[in-house]
Amino acid sequence: MAVYTDVSTEDLSRFLEGYELGELLSYKGIAEGVENSNFLVHTRSGHYILTLYEKRVAAGDVPFFLALMEHLASRGINCPQPVKNRKGEALGKLCGRLAAVVTFLDGMWIRRPDAWHCGALGAALARMHLAGADFPKKRKNALSVSGWRPLFEKAADRADTVQRDMRGTIEKELVHLEKTWPQGLPQGVIHADLFPDNVFFLGQELSGLIDFYFACTDTLAYDVAICLNAWCFEPDRSYNVTKGRDLLNGYIATRPLSTAELEALPQLARGAALRFLLTRLVDWLDVPKGALVQPKNPLEYFRKLRFHQKATSVRDYGIQPAKDIA
Amino acid sequence: MAVYTDVSTEDLSRFLEGYELGELLSYKGIAEGVENSNFLVHTRSGHYILTLYEKRVAAGDVPFFLALMEHLASRGINCPQPVKNRKGEALGKLCGRLAAVVTFLDGMWIRRPDAWHCGALGAALARMHLAGADFPKKRKNALSVSGWRPLFEKAADRADTVQRDMRGTIEKELVHLEKTWPQGLPQGVIHADLFPDNVFFLGQELSGLIDFYFACTDTLAYDVAICLNAWCFEPDRSYNVTKGRDLLNGYIATRPLSTAELEALPQLARGAALRFLLTRLVDWLDVPKGALVQPKNPLEYFRKLRFHQKATSVRDYGIQPAKDIA
Repeated sequence: MAVYTDVSTEDLSRFLEGYELGELLSYKGIAEGVENSNFLVHTRSGHYILTLYEKRVAAGDVPFFLALMEHLASRGINCPQPVKNRKGEALGKLCGRLAAVVTFLDGMWIRRPDAWHCGALGAALARMHLAGADFPKKRKNALSVSGWRPLFEKAADRADTVQRDMRGTIEKELVHLEKTWPQGLPQGVIHADLFPDNVFFLGQELSGLIDFYFACTDTLAYDVAICLNAWCFEPDRSYNVTKGRDLLNGYIATRPLSTAELEALPQLARGAALRFLLTRLVDWLDVPKGALVQPKNPLEYFRKLRFHQKATSVRDYGIQPAKDIA
Repeated sequence: MAVYTDVSTEDLSRFLEGYELGELLSYKGIAEGVENSNFLVHTRSGHYILTLYEKRVAAGDVPFFLALMEHLASRGINCPQPVKNRKGEALGKLCGRLAAVVTFLDGMWIRRPDAWHCGALGAALARMHLAGADFPKKRKNALSVSGWRPLFEKAADRADTVQRDMRGTIEKELVHLEKTWPQGLPQGVIHADLFPDNVFFLGQELSGLIDFYFACTDTLAYDVAICLNAWCFEPDRSYNVTKGRDLLNGYIATRPLSTAELEALPQLARGAALRFLLTRLVDWLDVPKGALVQPKNPLEYFRKLRFHQKATSVRDYGIQPAKDIA
C-alpha cells in the first residue's frame, strides 16, 4: 500500500493546469505499488494515474521508463501511456518529487492465475520483447548477477535467523552463478518484474501490462525465467508443469527461443529466484519489529531456488529440449 | 491508508453478479478511511465505492448508516447512495465481511480550508440536520460523555508519557463535563466526524459529504462543536475567529441556534475536544514502536481543549451571544 506523499487539492490543481486534461474532479491515493505514490485522478477528459516518484526510484531513470511506455504503446502494446504537458514534457514536478501522468488502463490482476493465464502472459511477454527491439535507450540491470553480492553482504549476518543454512546456500549459489551466468544470449528491453499484479485481464483477454519501473536492458530469456518463478508455482511452492508449459509455449509461438536460450533457462531461473530472494531478504531484515506493513516473505524464493537447483533442462519446466524437437 | 482485506477479481466478480452494475472493468484499493477497506470500482455502468466493514464497525450498526445515507440523499443531500443488489438489499457479504456498494462522488477535500470553506461547511451541516429530522432510526452515540471515562481508563496510566499533566487535566475535565454536560438541547442525527477529509468541494461549491460511520442520534449543536474543533484551528493550534464566525453564521442562516444551544456551545466544544483527545490518545498508546502507520497526535486536541476551557461565551467563537442580537 503506497501513498508516501500527501498531495493537496491546491497543489494538484496547479500541477494539472500545465496539462490539457480539463478541470480536476477527484483524486484518490491508491493502495498499489511499493516504490512510488500513486493516485487515480478524474478530470473532465477522463481517468488517469498520477505517479510521484519516491526515493527508491533513481531520478535519472524515470525518462527511460516513460520513453519505454510511450515506445511500447506506439507499437501496439497495451500499457499506460505518458500524458505530455503543454510544454510537450512527460515528466513534471509535484510536492518536491518527479511526477508523471499516464493513461488509466481498465483490467484486473489475477490472484490465482491458471494455465490459460500463464499462456496469455507468455505471449504478451514475447510481444513486448519484439516491440522493444528498436527501442533506442539503454538501462543497465542493477539487479542482475553483479548486483547480487552487494545485496547478499547487507543480509549475510542475519540470513540464518530467517532460515537455517540460508547464508551458506546463498553464498554457494552466488559463487556458482557468478562463474556460470549465461553470456551472449539475445538482449533487449525486459520488464524484469512481470508478476501477476502487473498484468491485467479483462474477460477472456490479457488487457494490459503495467509498472515498468524495473525495466532495463538485459537477456530476454531472463525475463521469461522471472515469469516462470512468478507465475508457475502453487501456493504450496510446488512447480506446476502445465502452467510452465503453457507460459513457454505462449512465448515461443510469438518469439521462438534459440537452443542456447532454452539450454540456459534453468540457470536463468536460478538467477531470477536468487534475485527476488535477496531483495526480499534485505527488505525483510530491514523492517522494524511490530511494523504494520509486512514485507514479502523471502522463504518463498528460497524454496523456488531449491527447485531450480535440481532442474537439469527445460524438460523440468514443461517443454521438450530443442534437440528433441529438431 | 486502509485496505485491510485483499479482494480477488474472482470473488469481486461473483459478488457483483448479484447487482445490476454491468461487467467489472477495474478496481483499486484506496488509501482513505481508517476503519474500513475501501475500493474504487469501475463497471460498465460507472464508478462506485465498495466498502468492506472491518472489525471496528459493529455489524449491527451498518444498516443504520446505509439507511441514513439513503434517507439524506432522498432529501437532496449530496452523499454516497447505497446501491441495492437484485434482492433489494444494500448490505451484502464479501470475503467474510459485511460489504456495501455506494455511488461515487466527485470532489476533493481541502487540506487548508479558508473562512469561505468553513461558511459552506456550516450551511451544509445545518442542511444535513434538517434533512435528518424525520429519519426514523436511532443510534446511541457511544463516544459521548458516558463513553469517555472508559476510554480514559484505558489510557490513564500512560497519559503523562505523552504530555506532562495530561492525566490530571483529563481527569478534572471529565469530572467537570460529567456534572455539567448540556441536557435537553435539540436532538437529531449528527454526523459526528465531519472533518475536512469528509467534505468534498468542486470549484466554488461544497459538492458532498461522506463517511457516515460515526453518525448517531445526539445533540445537534454538538455536531457544530465538533466542526469548530475540526475546521477553525490553524496549524499552530490557534483558534481562527473569522473561520469560526463564518462556520456559525453559515449554520445559523439555515438552522437558527436557540439561546440555550448558543450558551452551551463552549461546553459542547470542550466535550468535542475531549472526545477526539481520548480516542487519539488510546490509538497513540496502542501502536507498536516502529510501526509504519502513525496515528494522529493527541496533543493537537489537548491544546484545543485548553482553548475551550478558557472560553466563556460564543463571543469567543466569533459571533455575538443571542441576548446581544436580541
